[in-house]
Formats: sequence, C-alpha cells, structure tokens
Amino acid sequence: MRKKIVALAVLLPVPGVFLFAEESIESLGFSLEVVWLFIGAILVFIMQAGFALVETGLTRAKNAANITMKNTMDFCFGVIVYWALGWGFMYGKDAFGGFVGADQFFFNEMGLTAANGEIYKNWFFQAVFAATSATIVSGAMAERTRFKSYLIYTCFISAFIYPISGHWAWSGDGWLAKLGFHDFAGSTVVHSVGGWAALMGAAVLGPRTGKYIKGPDGRISVKAFPGHNIPYAALGVLFLFFGWFGFNGASTLTALGEGSIWSGANISRVCVVTALAASAGASAALFFSWLWFKKPDASMTLNGLLAGLVSITAPCGTVGPADAVVIGLIGGVLVVLAVEFIDKTLKIDDPVGAVSVHCVCGVFGTLAVGVWANAPEDGIVGLLKGGGFAQLGKQFTGVLAVGAWAALTSLLLFSLIKAVAGLRVSPREELMGLDLSEHKAEAYSGFQIFSNM
Amino acid sequence: MRKKIVALAVLLPVPGVFLFAEESIESLGFSLEVVWLFIGAILVFIMQAGFALVETGLTRAKNAANITMKNTMDFCFGVIVYWALGWGFMYGKDAFGGFVGADQFFFNEMGLTAANGEIYKNWFFQAVFAATSATIVSGAMAERTRFKSYLIYTCFISAFIYPISGHWAWSGDGWLAKLGFHDFAGSTVVHSVGGWAALMGAAVLGPRTGKYIKGPDGRISVKAFPGHNIPYAALGVLFLFFGWFGFNGASTLTALGEGSIWSGANISRVCVVTALAASAGASAALFFSWLWFKKPDASMTLNGLLAGLVSITAPCGTVGPADAVVIGLIGGVLVVLAVEFIDKTLKIDDPVGAVSVHCVCGVFGTLAVGVWANAPEDGIVGLLKGGGFAQLGKQFTGVLAVGAWAALTSLLLFSLIKAVAGLRVSPREELMGLDLSEHKAEAYSGFQIFSNM
Amino acid sequence: MRKKIVALAVLLPVPGVFLFAEESIESLGFSLEVVWLFIGAILVFIMQAGFALVETGLTRAKNAANITMKNTMDFCFGVIVYWALGWGFMYGKDAFGGFVGADQFFFNEMGLTAANGEIYKNWFFQAVFAATSATIVSGAMAERTRFKSYLIYTCFISAFIYPISGHWAWSGDGWLAKLGFHDFAGSTVVHSVGGWAALMGAAVLGPRTGKYIKGPDGRISVKAFPGHNIPYAALGVLFLFFGWFGFNGASTLTALGEGSIWSGANISRVCVVTALAASAGASAALFFSWLWFKKPDASMTLNGLLAGLVSITAPCGTVGPADAVVIGLIGGVLVVLAVEFIDKTLKIDDPVGAVSVHCVCGVFGTLAVGVWANAPEDGIVGLLKGGGFAQLGKQFTGVLAVGAWAALTSLLLFSLIKAVAGLRVSPREELMGLDLSEHKAEAYSGFQIFSNM
Repeated sequence: MRKKIVALAVLLPVPGVFLFAEESIESLGFSLEVVWLFIGAILVFIMQAGFALVETGLTRAKNAANITMKNTMDFCFGVIVYWALGWGFMYGKDAFGGFVGADQFFFNEMGLTAANGEIYKNWFFQAVFAATSATIVSGAMAERTRFKSYLIYTCFISAFIYPISGHWAWSGDGWLAKLGFHDFAGSTVVHSVGGWAALMGAAVLGPRTGKYIKGPDGRISVKAFPGHNIPYAALGVLFLFFGWFGFNGASTLTALGEGSIWSGANISRVCVVTALAASAGASAALFFSWLWFKKPDASMTLNGLLAGLVSITAPCGTVGPADAVVIGLIGGVLVVLAVEFIDKTLKIDDPVGAVSVHCVCGVFGTLAVGVWANAPEDGIVGLLKGGGFAQLGKQFTGVLAVGAWAALTSLLLFSLIKAVAGLRVSPREELMGLDLSEHKAEAYSGFQIFSNM
Repeated sequence: MRKKIVALAVLLPVPGVFLFAEESIESLGFSLEVVWLFIGAILVFIMQAGFALVETGLTRAKNAANITMKNTMDFCFGVIVYWALGWGFMYGKDAFGGFVGADQFFFNEMGLTAANGEIYKNWFFQAVFAATSATIVSGAMAERTRFKSYLIYTCFISAFIYPISGHWAWSGDGWLAKLGFHDFAGSTVVHSVGGWAALMGAAVLGPRTGKYIKGPDGRISVKAFPGHNIPYAALGVLFLFFGWFGFNGASTLTALGEGSIWSGANISRVCVVTALAASAGASAALFFSWLWFKKPDASMTLNGLLAGLVSITAPCGTVGPADAVVIGLIGGVLVVLAVEFIDKTLKIDDPVGAVSVHCVCGVFGTLAVGVWANAPEDGIVGLLKGGGFAQLGKQFTGVLAVGAWAALTSLLLFSLIKAVAGLRVSPREELMGLDLSEHKAEAYSGFQIFSNM
Repeated sequence: MRKKIVALAVLLPVPGVFLFAEESIESLGFSLEVVWLFIGAILVFIMQAGFALVETGLTRAKNAANITMKNTMDFCFGVIVYWALGWGFMYGKDAFGGFVGADQFFFNEMGLTAANGEIYKNWFFQAVFAATSATIVSGAMAERTRFKSYLIYTCFISAFIYPISGHWAWSGDGWLAKLGFHDFAGSTVVHSVGGWAALMGAAVLGPRTGKYIKGPDGRISVKAFPGHNIPYAALGVLFLFFGWFGFNGASTLTALGEGSIWSGANISRVCVVTALAASAGASAALFFSWLWFKKPDASMTLNGLLAGLVSITAPCGTVGPADAVVIGLIGGVLVVLAVEFIDKTLKIDDPVGAVSVHCVCGVFGTLAVGVWANAPEDGIVGLLKGGGFAQLGKQFTGVLAVGAWAALTSLLLFSLIKAVAGLRVSPREELMGLDLSEHKAEAYSGFQIFSNM
C-alpha cells in the first residue's frame, strides 16, 4: 500500500501538492533534524568500511579475511549490546552522581510520535559512535588474536567501557560534563578510549612472532611486516575522511539555529577545519617521514591524515581554519614520533599504528581545546585565546580520568580473557595465517601468495 | 553565470541573506522532501557497488572483470529502459483493473515547477530500486552466462517483470495494494522478484562445469569454488548495509509528519531496526555455521548479514527493535539452511547464495509483517500483536502472486533466450574464464593466478 | 558538555520538544541550505576515492601505491592552497575587470552567525571542486612522473590555474559570466581545465618507456599496457557516478524555490538526466567498442560512462531526459574515438584516457548547452530549442578562453618544472616501478607479480 502517494502526486499535476498540509515551523524543524542526524549516522557507519580497509591493507594477506570478519562482527555485536545495555548506561537516567545511567535498556514498542522519533534518532547516531570505538582495537591486535576472544572483548567495550566514560563526558548529568570538560566529537570519548584499549590489548597479547628478534650480540632487531595492499589502505583512509565529515559535522547534534557551537551555523565551519586539519596532518607526516626516512612513506602519510582527523575531533567545534592547520600539522608530526617510539622503544607491536593515531592524537586533540578553543559564546576559551589555564586544566582532568578508566578496565578485561579463554592463537596458527587456522578459508583463493611474509 | 549567488552572499556580510525571501512552510516542506529522496536514491544507487563487490569477491578471479561489467551495465540498461517503459507500467495511470499502468513513457521537457520536481524526485528514487532488482540475478548466474544474453535479460526485468508486479503492490491502484498487502521497502517487490528470477536463471543455465561430479559409485559429490577476494565481499556487504539505510529509511517517501509509518517520525526507527536485524542476521549465521561446520564461516556470516537486511525490508516500517532482532536471527539461520539445501539437495548452482538471501529471506520478511507488524494507526497488525491471521493471509497472497509472476515470466524469458541466442558460454570459454573469452582481457594483469581454480 | 540536549530530550517524553523554539521560515531555509551543500560537498569529496580507484585499476601493479599517494596528496595540498590563495582568486572581490578576485585569503576566526556559516558552507563546496580539477591530471601522467614534481604542479593548479578561469565563469563578476557563458556544474570550469592540463602534462612528459616502438621497417607499433585491476576501475567508476549526483545535483547551490534552474525544484531533474546520460555513455561505448574491436571492452565502457557524466555536467541544469540520452550517446562514442586518436595518431600516452574523458567530453558538454539547452526562464536556449546560434557562440568563447588559459599556463608550468626540478623518473626507476623507486615499498607485498608488465 506504499507509494500510493507517489501515484497520487503524479496523477494530480497541480503545483504544490504536499503530503502534510498541517506542517508547522516546529514540525519542519524536527523533520530536518531527523534528516541531519540520519546523514551523520550513516557517514559514521561507513567508517567501518574505512577501518576494515586500512587494517586489512596494512597487514598481511594471510590474515585478510580474519580482519574483515572482526571489523564486520564488532559492529554487529556492538549494535546489539549497545541496544541492550550500552545506551542505558550512557544516556539513561543518571543513577550514581554522574557516573552511570541506569534505564532505557532493551526498548521495543514505541508509537510514531515526534518525541519517540527523537529517541530513535539519537540512538541511531550514538550507536554508530559506540561501534567506532570498538573497531579501533582490532588493528592493534591484528594477526595474532583469537577470533572468539576478540568477540568477547568487543561486547564489553560497547556495553560497558565506552558507555560509562561516555556518560561522564557526554550525558548532561555526567561529572566531566558538569566540570566543563569539552570534547566536541570524541577525541577522548571515542578515539582515546579505543586507543587505550588498543594499547592494553597489544601489550597483553605480545608482539607477532618474529617481530622482535634478539641477535647473538644481545641486541634486539625490529622487523617490519609490510602491509599487503596499499591501495586498500589509501581507500580506507579516504572513506574514513568521508565519514569523518559526519562524525564531526553532525556532532552539532542539530542543523538549526546560530550563535552557538551547537547550532546549524557551525556545521560548515566544522567541516572546513576538519578538511584542513586532515590535510595538514597528511602533509606534515609526508614531509617529516621524507626527511627522517629519506622517502615519502605511504603508510606514515596515511596515518598522518588520520592523525589530523583525530586531533581535530575534539576542537573542531571551537577553532578556526588557521588554528586547525596548526593542530593538524602537530598531529601529523606526533603520529610519526609515536609510531617509532611505540615500535622501537616500548617494543609494543601495533601493526597498523592504531595506538599512535587514536590514543596519542586523541589525547593531543583533547588538550588542543584548552589551547586554541575560541568559543566565548559557549564559555570555552583556550590559553592562546585569552582564557588562561582554566580550560586546559579541565581537559587534562578529562584525559586522565577517561584514560585511566579505559586503560584499567581493558587491561583487566584482556588479562581475564587471556587467563580464561586464551587471547592468542598458537605460533603454528599464526604462521599459517588466521584465515586458514580460524576460518578454514583463504582470503585470496587462486592467487600465488608468499604467506610466510 | 552560476555562483553569482555565492559571490553575492559573500560580498554582503549581512546576517540572514537568503535566496528566496518568498519561502513558505509548504515550499520548505517540498524542498526538504527533494533532499530526503535524493539521499535515499543515492544510497540505493551505491548498493550497485556493494552487489558488484560481493559477487566479484565470492567468485573466481578469472571472471572478475565480467561480473563487474554485468553489474555496471545492468544499472545502465536498467535506467534507460525504466525511463522508456518501466516507470509507465509501474506508476502510469492504471489501465487494466490494477494490473498495469499505461502512460508517462519517455517523458522529456518539463518546466521547473514543484509539481514537476515531484515527478522527477519520485522517478529518481524508483529507478534505482528497479536497477537493484535486476542486479540480484547476476550473482546466481555468475561464471557461465553469456554477456550478450545477460544484457537482453536485464532489459526485460527492468522494463516489464519488476514494474508490473511493482504496480500491483506499490501503485495506489494496484490490486495487491487495494487488498491490504504490505511491503514497506521491498522484501517481495524488489528482493524476491530478483531472487525468483535468479533461481530460474540458475536452474535453466545449469551448474558450473565441475560443480557436481558423479563418482564411480554413482554418488554425486559437490565441489565448492571458493571466492577469490573475501575483503571485496566484506566491503561489498558493508556498502550494501550502508545503502540499505536509504533503501529502507527513505521508503517512508517523506521526511515530514508524524503518527503514520509513512512519516518522518518513523525514519529513525526504520534505521534502528534495520541495523539491529542485519546485526542479528550476521550473528545468527556466524554461530550457526560455527556449530554446524565447526568454523566461523566468512561467506555464510556475510550472507547472514544480508539475510537480516532482506528479512527486515518488508517489516521495517511496522516493528520495534526487539522484534527486529528476532526477525534478523531467523533470517540468519534460514539463509544457512537455504544455501545448503539449494546447493546440496536441489543441486542448483548459485555461486554467491543470491537465491537464499533474496528469495528465501524476501519471502520470510514479507510473511514476518503478518506476524510481528504493530502499526494499528495504519491498519497493519500481525498475528503476535493481536491482529489475527488477516494480515498474514494478505501477505501470503502477495508472496504467491508476485512469486508466480516473477518465476514464470523469468522462466519463459530465460528459456527463450536459451533457445534463440544461447544462454551459456562453451565449456572451453568457461574454463578459460569469461574475462578472456568474453572481453579479451584479464581482470588482474600481471598477477600470478591459478585460473583453473 | 555536548549531548546534554540528547539527555534532555530523552528525559522529557513530551511530544514536540524542539531545540530552537525561535526558528523562523528564514532560519529553517538557511539550515536546509547548510545540509544540502554539506551533502553536495561530501559527495564531491568521495569522487577522490573514485579517481584513485580508476587510475590505480587502469595502470600497472608496480605503480599502485604511488598513484594512490598522488591522489591523496593532491586533495590535501589542494585544500590547503585553496584556503590560502585559490578561494580569494576565485570568489574574492573582483580586482581586474572580471579577471581575478583579490581578497579573503587565509581567513580564520569568524563568529557563529548565519552569514559566516554561509561563507564556510560555500567554501567547503567550492574547495572539493578545486581538488577534483587537480586530480584529473594524475591519471594522464601516471607511471612515470616524479612524486615531488607532481606535488609542485598540484599546488599551482589549485591555487592559480583553476581559480582564475573559475572566477571568469562562476564568480558573479567574471567576464565570461557577464557574457552569458553557461556551465552549470563544470564541464569546462572543472573537467576541461583538468583535461587540458592532463594533455599538456602527458605531452611534456613523453610516453611510458616501451609504449611506442619503432620497428626495423620504420613503422611505429603501439603497445597497450593493460591495467592491473579491472574491479578497482569499475568500483571507481561507480563511486564517481555516486559522487557526481552531488557534483551536478548540488550545483543548483540551493535546495529552495522553484521556477529557475538554480532552484530546489531542479535538483531531481538534474539527477535524472545525469543518470541517463551516464548510462547512455556507457551503452554507446560498449556497443561501439564491440563493433569496432569485436569485444565489449571493459575500460572503454567504463570510460564511456565517465564520458556521459562529463558531457552532461554543463547542460544538466537545462535539458530534459531524452536530450540527456542523446548527449550521453554522443559522449560515449566520442570518448572511444578520442582515446584511439590520442593514442594512435597523436601518440600522446595517456594511460587512463583522462584527456579523452575530461577534455574532449568537457568541451563537447559545454557546447551541448548551446545546442540542447531549454531554460527560457533563465535566458539559456540552445540551437535546437529555437534559440539560434547566440548561446552556442557564448559557449565557444568560454571553451576557447578557458582552454587557452589552462593549456598555456599548464604547458608553461610543466616546462618550468621539467627544466628546474625534473618532471620524469629515470628509465631504471620507471622499469622498477614508482612504488619501489619513489616510496621504497611495494603496493602488494607477498603477491607474485610480473612487474615488468
């Protein structure tokens, strides 16, 4: 019985046949909000494809099916547990003085009123954010984690870890929100939570076999395992960039109004600074890697672009274009330094650089609000804009609190999984590749591949 | 002369410089409708890329160029014949008591009024749906169909088969619509039509050479031909998921209003239940294949996600989240059973599982409306919501009528093509691969491929 | 402190809780404009992924990382220089009688008023167009250009070449705009500028080693280097098609109003004619290549689709569906002829056919306005619609002026770069592939590739 209206509108060639004559300014505004958050949500959704491509491209061919399966399933499991539990912990009625929400679990039947449409609209947008946080981890733990254990982990981050610190910062009743901590689109709330969990996961798991080899002289040499498909990685970065316009742009949470960072008039500026910071990040990483390693390194440059994006995610609502370029440039340099430091000095094996991108730049981006923010209308003014150290102090508090929460809970979780179910495949399975050992299938059937690479 | 307005708006730094001072609530509502159906249409469009990737990834490397060409051209031919004929049959003025429309073929010049904009808006959204139905078939007939014959077929489904049953269900004058049959976004109208045609095509065509081999003891062994690129398949599924938010979400056909399933207030709920059903479908197929085959099978899981999507397509407008999870779980189990049944018992060779996904789950999803629908405001209430068997009966009628129409016409069509032009390449061409035999080119020039695989 | 509003809306289950009670029709209209140009801009953005895939797929595996790096960096550098200089030259206050703009360079802090939101909105949409123009060139110069030199070039086109001719045609003060030259979405302003630069680049650079070989009899034989991934190319074309709906559709620059080609009522028609012309272009190239080369050629067909898109870009605002089909068909034939002519007769080596697609069809599409345009309400009427030769003359003027500008400046630029920094890698580096020689990395680590292909 659908599409009767189509036929009607076609059959009556009268100018101005509209479906709902009783529209008011209020109801039109609501409709536009629905459309706007729909756009934001699907753009954040497609970042899943971006993550899958980046992580697949930067790892070896023998684990490609496994990586894409992990990326697909962390979204699927994530959405279900976020519906069951996560949303209630994050945006349910506050239960413990700003520390956790506690209702609206498992909602089902609701009538088709605007008020219910509003709940669904917000839920859809928040659920895709939760899934992003989980998917960051799979890259750092790639090529050696048991599939089953990854699935257990991903349920916990989407149901508990992410929503609870999210409640602190993004629910109106959260203690960090009340303190004045500001994270426009999630450098800390989303990216650093994923990044801290990635760091803990990679540390508990240990490096890939053959990554750090002790020579006869006792010195440890570090082997690089080149990714098997740079075009995938580049394409993935372009999809992430594409989706990030929704991630940051729609974090105004509205398309209406002007005069506040939470208004429609701020959307386009958010996009402009996002584009500039990402571009500056890629440029900085390109030149820095060129100078340091004597080559314009592809994976460093791509990570530089992501570093620019993560760095601008918290401050994108409150800074102008020139400051965004500066923030992006710093992020791009930072990610190259961090990748080298984590790989060579800490000797933690993060195959795709997820910790450097999401944790290090997530922290930097959050602090950047305290330095460059210039939104006096919303009471957020950074050090360089005459706000003194007040905002920077609040940002530090948020970084430390959320970082401690995410790092400790995920350390506990990974240690428990390791003890109970086993976190890592056997060396033989690792050598064979996770596609064959976990899924009994090849990612690239028919191709000649040197799978021991 | 374009973009004068840009310069004007820039040069006059006056708050509130708007282009059309004479805007009214009605005209704004129309503008929002245009934007909303634009979003829906382009999302359905990008599903073509999803289908191309899934079908390419799940088949062999030697046919990869051929598959992508088929997927590209069925859209191109489909759009042209839908403009010439299909739209008129589907949404033209009813001519035979609800069985077919019969005007508006080949429209050209129309002035830029809102009423004409409305026609173009609807046409764009409907045309991409028509193309979806056609593209479903190419997967089931992959790796052995002549390119020329596929092109002939695709014109007929987009010009006749799909539009005529579409008229029954989706035109206001259609007999199924008048009966009270409900298919919100096309489990039957789009997916099962494609699925039935896929079944007939695969049956008439016969299996790929070497697929079913009779042993000396007379028993037939079934060979699996693994797909050549699982990341393509996973990426394709993510694109289909992405596009499906437009497919289902924009099937409200409006962004305005509240209180009806055909209103803007229903959009976000449609998206939420779509996300949950897809996730449940993937999860169910993952666990079911893990139990049954002792491995978390990648292609089964990906098909499970699609099964959840197809299953929720008819009921997405009328059910809540918990019921969507149930529908998705059933769809995910069903697709695994159907793939095995069609492959092992019916011995019909469907290389990508298109029949199981689109036909079997299309039928299930349509019937699910009769079980779980809870939209009393629109008169659609299922068995479990106190509506008795009335709606379920209407759904059965629709499933049978559209199924019979699609199956019989496509059986006739494929049999005719087989008799006249030949449907299948020669065994030698099949062995060589359709890329070389049909297009005189390799998909992956320079790569070492074991092409007999 | 974000998302307080979410929590509020959730906690107060009152129908009709809206954020900005003080909304007016004007402010709602502005909000919709922001959303609409956001959609347009991100769609044009994702065309970068399309270009990257097409160019990667149609060239050899040994240069795949290099191509994707060039495509990523021309966007990043392009956005930064367009912010610094390009926008000011294009849309800044006119300084020299319609020839160049001269203010608004490097803008930074602006308050969150609707008027400033308007500037950012327009900037975002224009910046992605500038990046498109630059990225066209990389395909024609693929597989032999030094990375460093490409980066230098890309800055100049985005900062100077594209913005200045863009000012002529698209700024309200531009001399071509005042003359009545019409290019709705950029057949000339974007595509032919990129295409002319591509032609000059490929000519100055010379062909790839081994492309044109003189035999003992003095005759030159032309070698084809087949692309290494046809699915990439097809996927890239589908992404370009997807993005083009934003490129053309959002070139109305508004979602509001009716009665003008620059109105919301024209959006859907623009999309319909875009879809039809692209489909006709692919169909024409398919059949023409089938007749001529006795095979349905994949890369010709894909280029035919792009040819249809480029051809309809200028006239898409002013023609109806039937004329769009004609324009697309001509474009599809033209691109096959042009590819053969440039390759075999001119002996200019354009690995992906960028000159044929963007320059030849860009010129054709611009002239097509003078033939088929039927927009009397905006004073644009072509030869076949009773407008005489007036509009055609204006179109010729624009084609010649912009063509001369783009060809001469890029010829000068490439010659200068060649003289100063060197434009081309050494024959040894070319043989080795640019991935290894420029980036010290392989695109497909672990795969067996015949890299001399």
